[in-house]
Amino acid sequence: MTHERRGLSKRELHAWKTFFRMQEVLLGRIEQQLQSCSGLSTADYTVLTVLSGAADGRLRAFHLGTLMGWEKSRLHHQLTRMAKRGLIERRSGEARAIYVTLTQQGREALTEAAPQHSDHVRGLLIDCLRPEQLDQLADISSIVLDNIQRQDDTADCCTDQR
Amino acid sequence: MTHERRGLSKRELHAWKTFFRMQEVLLGRIEQQLQSCSGLSTADYTVLTVLSGAADGRLRAFHLGTLMGWEKSRLHHQLTRMAKRGLIERRSGEARAIYVTLTQQGREALTEAAPQHSDHVRGLLIDCLRPEQLDQLADISSIVLDNIQRQDDTADCCTDQR
Repeated sequence: MTHERRGLSKRELHAWKTFFRMQEVLLGRIEQQLQSCSGLSTADYTVLTVLSGAADGRLRAFHLGTLMGWEKSRLHHQLTRMAKRGLIERRSGEARAIYVTLTQQGREALTEAAPQHSDHVRGLLIDCLRPEQLDQLADISSIVLDNIQRQDDTADCCTDQR
Repeated sequence: MTHERRGLSKRELHAWKTFFRMQEVLLGRIEQQLQSCSGLSTADYTVLTVLSGAADGRLRAFHLGTLMGWEKSRLHHQLTRMAKRGLIERRSGEARAIYVTLTQQGREALTEAAPQHSDHVRGLLIDCLRPEQLDQLADISSIVLDNIQRQDDTADCCTDQR
């Protein structure tokens, strides 16, 4: 309750603004390149990748959403679009759970898109960074993810409580 | 033409996957918090911020898009929505240029949202990183932005030419 509101310092603001712009530009380019080479969106690609890493290419929708950090409605709309295109299938399981399965068509789309997508990621991000910078980026990302995970169940965004 | 296709190493893949997941989760949380506290999307907020930094709160639409790293159609749709809500105005200028101006209402929306948005960014990202990690994040982001800028006019995403 005694939380003191502080603006961001020059250093903090520089880090945030540069990071924000970078992710906007980088993810925009990745989306363009993926779409133009494979007709998949980054969201399609991410769902296909996560499913392909699961046993039998099958996950509970709830678990899929958690793994991707997506809200329920975003996941629902995305899966509806992908099911219409035959990339995944949704089936009801026990206890009203919904299961999402990679189709053969989805697996082929991923296999076809993956090499070019790796090339794009390498060309846009990986090859311009030194190995220690890749490790720094991974460490920073893990710290931020852990921080958000810790806050997720306790934070109330519109109060000043910490 | 002699470009050899290489997949990503374990280290590279770890950095990319961790970064990708972090930006998904972080930007998702920022969007939620901004929407629920101010009714603005991150895209609205970004446009308002960029305009507020310009002389007279006014920029050529083309220049605004470049500053934000957005494609023309994304910018067009975003500005149409914002104009309908009275946050910005679009006017034609000389040589068929379109100018975008922050309205009084847009300026007030930004002023109202800014302190809580700073708090969110601080709570989600800034305060969990050490000062040197903030600098690393800024440096890495600048390098990636410079890299993409260099490639932008020369790369062809669907060929193997570099």
